[in-house]
Amino acid sequence: MQYPNQIGQLIESFSKLPGVGRKTATRYAFHILSMNDNDASEFSQSIQETKNAITFCSVCGFITSKDMDPCAIDRDQTRDQTKIFVVKDSQAVMSIDNLNDYRGLYHVLNGVINPLAGIGPENINVTSLINRLKQHPEVNEVIIGLDSSAEGEATTLYLARLIKPAGIKVSTLARGLSVGSDLNYADKLTLSRAVTGRTEL
Amino acid sequence: MQYPNQIGQLIESFSKLPGVGRKTATRYAFHILSMNDNDASEFSQSIQETKNAITFCSVCGFITSKDMDPCAIDRDQTRDQTKIFVVKDSQAVMSIDNLNDYRGLYHVLNGVINPLAGIGPENINVTSLINRLKQHPEVNEVIIGLDSSAEGEATTLYLARLIKPAGIKVSTLARGLSVGSDLNYADKLTLSRAVTGRTEL
Repeated sequence: MQYPNQIGQLIESFSKLPGVGRKTATRYAFHILSMNDNDASEFSQSIQETKNAITFCSVCGFITSKDMDPCAIDRDQTRDQTKIFVVKDSQAVMSIDNLNDYRGLYHVLNGVINPLAGIGPENINVTSLINRLKQHPEVNEVIIGLDSSAEGEATTLYLARLIKPAGIKVSTLARGLSVGSDLNYADKLTLSRAVTGRTEL
Repeated sequence: MQYPNQIGQLIESFSKLPGVGRKTATRYAFHILSMNDNDASEFSQSIQETKNAITFCSVCGFITSKDMDPCAIDRDQTRDQTKIFVVKDSQAVMSIDNLNDYRGLYHVLNGVINPLAGIGPENINVTSLINRLKQHPEVNEVIIGLDSSAEGEATTLYLARLIKPAGIKVSTLARGLSVGSDLNYADKLTLSRAVTGRTEL
């Protein structure tokens, strides 16, 4: 017994999403069947339209419409043009920007250096960052906001070594205890970082 | 800061899938962006094609192509025409049929009775089941294989009371310990069912 071709193909497509196995994909596919026709064509169209209309900004690597390159952030002259926040992906730009704590520019690497997966500096947006810094001597601080993983930290160190010789200040996100967390339950590494990086009151 | 329209719409569509919240939907949408063009249009098309080409069999309620009604199972004369297996949805037909323990017919209710959610016998395929039994006096056993939830059990009892007066044998799936499970860790209800329904060796 096999599912009809069309639904088999749909299950196949859903299985390609990150973290989705065969059972979840089947569940999603059956949900599409039970959707009304409008919702289903909207879904189908929005996949196609996203692929057709969205691209990555040629300046900072953030997602943007094809008819709006450079992106809205780079066009916004009210933003602080002297600071660039380096992040892993476009979702991180949204996370940081919605905090309203930072109103400067961004640079999206679209990945981190990961030698085991064959991702070197040439596979992520490092060259465009360095060129951008050369073209804009007004930039005086680069904030590196990558994940606190081995790959994230290695990428941070790599970038810092590359940028600091140009006399630009390089900073990274504070590591320490989460707000509201219990000191006794923190892992050793986090606690050790919180002690080393203690702040004066 | 907002995502470009198209990707916002796509996140909206993904959020409609069962068990998918805003964060997961965003993750899926970004995955679509990073897919190659072919995979993305295949995905988009298969949603549309599934909606266009798939319908529910007019005899048993199982999913089938629009150009193949009644479905392949009902057309298969090598199957035992005297037994009907009643299940909740089309996925259950696949689960049972792939066991190769059962080679009869099926009837898909497409739901179970759930008064709290406003789903009565008239909202699921009960009438079509009763009519089918009337038209096919050769059926001598109806196996009810619904979930072991309150709604599933209520639906089972409701169907049994409806079908038994016609002199048709009604059975349901055995409840008991899972194969390989530890007796001491079974919940009380399952253990009690395993004792009551003990089988002679």
